[in-house]
Amino acid sequence: MKGATGQQEDMFRSVTPPKKIGSKAYEQQVIDLRADLLKAQIDLGKTPRSIIVTIAGVDGAGKGEVIQLLNEWLDPRGLETHSFWNLENEVSQRPYQWRYWRALPPRGRLSIWFGGMYTNAIASCTQQESRSKWSQSKCKEIQAFEEMLRLDGTIHLKIWLHLGKSEQRKRLKDLTENPKLHWRATREDWKHHNLYDTYSDAAQHVLKCTHFPAAPWTVLDASEKSQRDISVGKALLACMERTVKGRRVGILQPTLEPSKKLQHNNQLDTVDLSQRLSGKAYQNSLLEWQARCHRLFWEAYDRSIPTVLVFEGWDAAGKGSAIKRVTGAIDARLYRIVCVGAPTDEENQFHYLWRFWKPLPAAGRVTIFDRSWYGRVLVERVEKFAKPEEWKRAYEEINAFEKQLLSQGTVLCKFWIHISPEKQMERFQKRLEVPYKRHKITDEDWRNREKWPAYEEAINEMIHRTDSPSAPWTVVAGNNKKFARIQILKTICGSLKKAVEHHKG
Amino acid sequence: MKGATGQQEDMFRSVTPPKKIGSKAYEQQVIDLRADLLKAQIDLGKTPRSIIVTIAGVDGAGKGEVIQLLNEWLDPRGLETHSFWNLENEVSQRPYQWRYWRALPPRGRLSIWFGGMYTNAIASCTQQESRSKWSQSKCKEIQAFEEMLRLDGTIHLKIWLHLGKSEQRKRLKDLTENPKLHWRATREDWKHHNLYDTYSDAAQHVLKCTHFPAAPWTVLDASEKSQRDISVGKALLACMERTVKGRRVGILQPTLEPSKKLQHNNQLDTVDLSQRLSGKAYQNSLLEWQARCHRLFWEAYDRSIPTVLVFEGWDAAGKGSAIKRVTGAIDARLYRIVCVGAPTDEENQFHYLWRFWKPLPAAGRVTIFDRSWYGRVLVERVEKFAKPEEWKRAYEEINAFEKQLLSQGTVLCKFWIHISPEKQMERFQKRLEVPYKRHKITDEDWRNREKWPAYEEAINEMIHRTDSPSAPWTVVAGNNKKFARIQILKTICGSLKKAVEHHKG
Repeated sequence: MKGATGQQEDMFRSVTPPKKIGSKAYEQQVIDLRADLLKAQIDLGKTPRSIIVTIAGVDGAGKGEVIQLLNEWLDPRGLETHSFWNLENEVSQRPYQWRYWRALPPRGRLSIWFGGMYTNAIASCTQQESRSKWSQSKCKEIQAFEEMLRLDGTIHLKIWLHLGKSEQRKRLKDLTENPKLHWRATREDWKHHNLYDTYSDAAQHVLKCTHFPAAPWTVLDASEKSQRDISVGKALLACMERTVKGRRVGILQPTLEPSKKLQHNNQLDTVDLSQRLSGKAYQNSLLEWQARCHRLFWEAYDRSIPTVLVFEGWDAAGKGSAIKRVTGAIDARLYRIVCVGAPTDEENQFHYLWRFWKPLPAAGRVTIFDRSWYGRVLVERVEKFAKPEEWKRAYEEINAFEKQLLSQGTVLCKFWIHISPEKQMERFQKRLEVPYKRHKITDEDWRNREKWPAYEEAINEMIHRTDSPSAPWTVVAGNNKKFARIQILKTICGSLKKAVEHHKG
Repeated sequence: MKGATGQQEDMFRSVTPPKKIGSKAYEQQVIDLRADLLKAQIDLGKTPRSIIVTIAGVDGAGKGEVIQLLNEWLDPRGLETHSFWNLENEVSQRPYQWRYWRALPPRGRLSIWFGGMYTNAIASCTQQESRSKWSQSKCKEIQAFEEMLRLDGTIHLKIWLHLGKSEQRKRLKDLTENPKLHWRATREDWKHHNLYDTYSDAAQHVLKCTHFPAAPWTVLDASEKSQRDISVGKALLACMERTVKGRRVGILQPTLEPSKKLQHNNQLDTVDLSQRLSGKAYQNSLLEWQARCHRLFWEAYDRSIPTVLVFEGWDAAGKGSAIKRVTGAIDARLYRIVCVGAPTDEENQFHYLWRFWKPLPAAGRVTIFDRSWYGRVLVERVEKFAKPEEWKRAYEEINAFEKQLLSQGTVLCKFWIHISPEKQMERFQKRLEVPYKRHKITDEDWRNREKWPAYEEAINEMIHRTDSPSAPWTVVAGNNKKFARIQILKTICGSLKKAVEHHKG
């Protein structure tokens, strides 16, 4: 844990003790601060960068008050507030990070996160035994997530509002004794107060683990309200000004293993493209495997297992017709197809993975991606739509994304449908002869053919770097479309069967 | 019921009897049809119009097969398929029509609806006693909804796939006896078959009631598959070609009552703007009413009652500061604020109400609209962003929208914060003196002042036409901000209290 080293002291002890400000001085400071904040917000709006402000902290420190205040001080049209409390079914059926992805700010804007990604973490770290497990897995996930966003221009300001035990007691007592305000101190607040030391200890553990050099915590004393508000405002102002200047620290070219090793790993060349299926054998196999698939998709539905199917392949490899044979085996109410083209204006306002999170399947449902996030390391790499450091770091980002799917129990099948360049030419020419297929052939298709070797290199590297036992690639022998379809149906059945049986056991 | 008149005969008897087509002829027809469909789809993409295709019909008629086929024949990138089956919590917590609003096609595109808005209707109409109730309420809702979309350029093609009782039996039997396909005939299918006459009767009732001149049903015989597919394709092609040509039939200037009556209904002039609250009395009232609100919002949460608060008012009327006093009384986890500005590019792809459906609150939550759908009949009317026939029909559309909210039990409060022109001038000048408020005053604000009488007319008409006992307007006396805030808090408390008590009883 990078953040933890050199951070062994008590994080809360070093907090600046509160200075009481007079109401006159406070008002003057607020006037200046608000003008500066608004100016910074306007400047931020002109950049492709965005800011997440996490307001976390001790009960009674005034997280809600601070969030109200920021909504008052800033222009609310460039701002959204998200709490991750008591979420709907929609969210709980998706992988854990889904909630955060849909709360991301678009470029030029701010999101305020109530409690952020740490409320659950602190609760689970109150138990000593789960602490080291958390540090070793979840914490790394958070770090990778924050780093990925940072490299994409989303800066995370993490504010912890601290309150000592006696101050917390005093604040709760004051509220309880005020007949007009006693409703603000809940029974839950008192319960937490009695566990103050446990919670404080757990919070400190989590804060230390997530105190990354590029995204450190700002711990502020909250015992004096006006001082607290000014401090939060100043911290945000400084963060916005830094972000606008855009000093992007620490963007390194990702270090990947040398490509030499890759050349010995040419997955495409190992595929036997001569494999065929004849008409009758194909018809029988098709019905047989579609029937199995159909049953298994319903069994997965009954067990709330979601499925994600990814189809990639050369132009004219037969993705579309293969997908049709798969959907022919799924009840139309269970699946949706997502055709991935160039991103829309809205999608461009976010990290490139954002648009793939949105349509992920709910429990028991199926999402079929006709092209996918792998575009980043295929077309975007070859056509230079993505910078080298962008597609190079995408492998790890994709692996982390798929890990999120898997950890939620999703069945994930990834297909690369492979054909020879000769077969592609043959199909292009056939398409030109059929009126309703002619629109499928564009100048771009012919241009892409010329880049066959560059694509081949990208495909091999993609398979090499994103193939794992739990998220394996299936390279499909596509020269014979019928053979390819059966190979795909068989693979899907195998994965579903494993998941369904695992779920039973 | 307009659709019902002159439609008393058996709708299913008049269906064209199926002609068997040879496979050769079928293939040739498909080639031509697909080319035409693709061309029409490309043309549609260039228009601001869109198409909904509902595929409904008898079990076993092949609704799923037809949808698969349309996905195959059309370019899937301009197409989305929606089934409204076993919906997530997210949907069931929102007003009934929410599911359809989020399945609307953006301009230039198609949505295919599996079963459409009629599956539940038919099931409920199998019981004779609920039939007339349905015809009198739900059916009118559907008609208004379709008409609203049509006027906005969304055409609804409604296809019913018919299958006689004996053909249905035969089809189910064939499937059951085929060892490879028997999974396609479910136990549910047989159950429905045994109730064939009841269902057919109910379906006929629903079809007749929703057979509107501008959005009629196309009933097709589905007993012969290739004929069925060709018929569906041709019906869609004809619909697309009509839509592209854009012969918009029947757009009439909405007939509104004469405005004379309106002049006697000047709501704004009846408000006593001299009402005030002094510092101490205000402070006490504020704390008291915030405390009550806070408790009531939690009680509403416990009872799953959603709340929608609408804030409209003159520039500088104090909407923002009033909203802050309201949010100060709601737990930050329960509410969200939606600031309504000019629509985004994405929002412009849909009916103007679309963007207000999206953020409606889930059960127990609160959405606060800072400006709202009433912009249509205020700024869009006065500034001529909307055509007269558009804002004139908006009153009824808004009433139908709010009726949807109310029928789901939503608490709805609508505030117009009223001030005098002199008070506005005074506040504008004060704002110019405060650095962090200066940005709030734009040239537009000064221009708007000149249109005061036009706005006054629009406001009075808005209140007159959209005020009802269940969705009342509260005109707030805003010259004294403190008085206004207390009036707003009191009103919200009153509405919440009524809803909570009603829910208890």
